[in-house]
Amino acid sequence: MRFVIIGGDAAGMSAASRAKRKMPEMDVTVLEKTGDVSYSACGMPYNIADPERDIDDLVVRKANVFREKQDIDLRTGHNVESIDRSAKVISGKNSDGEFRIPYDKLLIATGAEPITPDIPGISSPGVMVLKSLEHGRRIKDFISSAGVESAVIIGMGYIALEMCEALTTRNIQVSMVKPGPIFLPWMAPDLSEMVRTEVEKNSVKLYPGQEIKEIRKDNEILRIVCSDTVLECQVVIVAVGVNPNSGIAVEAGLETGPSGAISVDRRLQTSDKNIYAAGDCADAYHVVTGEKAYIPLALRANRAGWAVADNITGTGTELDGIAGTAVFKVFDLQVARTGLTAKEALKQGFDPVENVIKSNSRAHSHPGVSKIAVHIIGDRKSGRLLGMQMAGKEGAAHRINAAAVALHQGMTVQAFSQCDMAYAPPFSPVWDPMLTAANQLLKKM
Amino acid sequence: MRFVIIGGDAAGMSAASRAKRKMPEMDVTVLEKTGDVSYSACGMPYNIADPERDIDDLVVRKANVFREKQDIDLRTGHNVESIDRSAKVISGKNSDGEFRIPYDKLLIATGAEPITPDIPGISSPGVMVLKSLEHGRRIKDFISSAGVESAVIIGMGYIALEMCEALTTRNIQVSMVKPGPIFLPWMAPDLSEMVRTEVEKNSVKLYPGQEIKEIRKDNEILRIVCSDTVLECQVVIVAVGVNPNSGIAVEAGLETGPSGAISVDRRLQTSDKNIYAAGDCADAYHVVTGEKAYIPLALRANRAGWAVADNITGTGTELDGIAGTAVFKVFDLQVARTGLTAKEALKQGFDPVENVIKSNSRAHSHPGVSKIAVHIIGDRKSGRLLGMQMAGKEGAAHRINAAAVALHQGMTVQAFSQCDMAYAPPFSPVWDPMLTAANQLLKKM
Repeated sequence: MRFVIIGGDAAGMSAASRAKRKMPEMDVTVLEKTGDVSYSACGMPYNIADPERDIDDLVVRKANVFREKQDIDLRTGHNVESIDRSAKVISGKNSDGEFRIPYDKLLIATGAEPITPDIPGISSPGVMVLKSLEHGRRIKDFISSAGVESAVIIGMGYIALEMCEALTTRNIQVSMVKPGPIFLPWMAPDLSEMVRTEVEKNSVKLYPGQEIKEIRKDNEILRIVCSDTVLECQVVIVAVGVNPNSGIAVEAGLETGPSGAISVDRRLQTSDKNIYAAGDCADAYHVVTGEKAYIPLALRANRAGWAVADNITGTGTELDGIAGTAVFKVFDLQVARTGLTAKEALKQGFDPVENVIKSNSRAHSHPGVSKIAVHIIGDRKSGRLLGMQMAGKEGAAHRINAAAVALHQGMTVQAFSQCDMAYAPPFSPVWDPMLTAANQLLKKM
Repeated sequence: MRFVIIGGDAAGMSAASRAKRKMPEMDVTVLEKTGDVSYSACGMPYNIADPERDIDDLVVRKANVFREKQDIDLRTGHNVESIDRSAKVISGKNSDGEFRIPYDKLLIATGAEPITPDIPGISSPGVMVLKSLEHGRRIKDFISSAGVESAVIIGMGYIALEMCEALTTRNIQVSMVKPGPIFLPWMAPDLSEMVRTEVEKNSVKLYPGQEIKEIRKDNEILRIVCSDTVLECQVVIVAVGVNPNSGIAVEAGLETGPSGAISVDRRLQTSDKNIYAAGDCADAYHVVTGEKAYIPLALRANRAGWAVADNITGTGTELDGIAGTAVFKVFDLQVARTGLTAKEALKQGFDPVENVIKSNSRAHSHPGVSKIAVHIIGDRKSGRLLGMQMAGKEGAAHRINAAAVALHQGMTVQAFSQCDMAYAPPFSPVWDPMLTAANQLLKKM
């Protein structure tokens, strides 16, 4: 059997490796558009923060290891342009010209592409996006070679905030700008305010609510012309989110879901039973709503890649879905979330009740204690836990997993509040902040 | 209605405060044997570690606050000696003589008492236990006034290890000794070895497998005569566990459970419907086995105290039970557990399958990465997750809560392995170590 995979990062290489491990005689071909495979895209901001680290540190496994040790036919620089479903053949271009490859089973793992907003001057030199390792390489080289001292980041999401820390660490003065009026609109206001304070404490200037009219380049200076101000800098990072790379799937007539991502079932099959999709190009079931959602994150990509390999080799794996669990670090703050926001919950027909508590991160009077804020959302009708967000200097990143497990189980806030959580003075108050949040929420439900 | 509470620490004062809050007209009387109420016993080792901190920092709420602000009739120095269930009267002694107090509802919250092993010389001056705040005060005063430079700790449990760190922090040379041959018998050997290495790296000497024959005091030197060695020191800390303080309950004919703890139902009622028990003197249902267990920990005590108040004031609260979730810090290591050990699982009729993995605490190549070990246990018959243990420099303490939630839900290892956990390079590999542990265990199940 010939298993062909389009895309050689998290989902694609996970699927390739696992398929080969489970069925060594299988003919596995991976076609990757760029020259890089299997790297930690999420690690790029942290790598960029340190001029001493090589960007290639982020490569988890090199192409020749896949080729020589794992006997995977991995071809970089191969851009797949179309899928002929009836003939079961893909075709595209590489540096030698055109290629056509037949498949028995196909996996589309083409990932996502960064959104480029429609702003005059967005293509100016020095205006950069961060998605592929090549993007990271370019940004890092540019910062060093141009001696960048000032940057503007367009966008205020996870990647934007991670980049804001990375650039600040390199003594670059950072400003962040976006058209939306609210700093972190998906966050409870109290928690968003904690993040804002942390970012501003680190000399980052925030400009929410600024329409970006134009980017002008005069000599080496970039001028970002906004509705009320003009920001000057040497480099612009555009981090306003991603879109699924689902173009070839759409052209091949495969069904798509939210955000135009390729629609897959719990076995990762698309509307064509010989074609699977996994990773940032595909959608997933949300465990809270049971509906399709597009939340492209690394764990899902790896897990989906494995599941495709399982299904192709006959194990029959179905995935539960995603809870939307995510975490990021910005300066000294950990920010984590899982499940729905109150707004999302309302849209999905729930009757959301929410509450924010601030608690100690450690026991009463324990040295090093700081504040942790927990935002919790429940459904008044069913009593179910719908979502949680946390922000604090310690404990938010790992605590959130407990709420994620609860969401997978459709647990009520009442049941969650009864859980036996860990306590020792260096790590928590007697009542873990998540329990305090649940206890307080129950009074409102 | 008159609500009388025997014992003024976690369970007792939680119950008193909540009962008064919910029903201000209720007559609430608390009888505490010692002079201290509502303090963080778990914080004592950390307080002892710092000579600059006052031991009374550990008091969460002072007696006069309960009396004056909360209108609770709190009487310290009152030692209750017996319960007359038919007359509904308790009696005991204080400095003025005898007292008798009638009750409508009674809560026994007498806590636990440290086990004193039967060793000749165990009552010598300088041989001390740590349970009450008064014990902590005495140890701290003794260390300072006697200029202690060497200590022997009898026992190697949580408290013993926390005290070993505390005393080492004060530049005291610590040896630990116990009769049992295995350092941490409840732990998977690989994890136990990590803890042992950490402890020994900090110049602590470990003597497991030593029968303790006698303690001799010659001038200011204590000699602990063991089967194969004699240890010399200036202070001995005895930390070999606790027994429930259930004597008056037993004499009153109330039923007891494991370890002689007072037997309570999910509403915290004893075998006498007018008498409740909560905290370290009472047992609890274990959520994994459904059977009674005696695992005295602070969160359960507080939660049970609240539940008693709820039930007395008419809310009707039932508690799920405990998962045995616990965490401690020893030097730079976090050690956490929840659920059953393999040995406990076997004894309870499960068919346990276990596995240990070592994973990175952070992403591939992320600065500051260290190792975290996860021990996971599942039941081959039902597929259920039965327990988890973790040890590592970061992330163990808060991660364990996710496994605890899973145990409360009776989740299978398969379902747990599908959970959408948080990933960002500073906090975790893409596959959280708990997921890697679950994935690996599934191969054996």
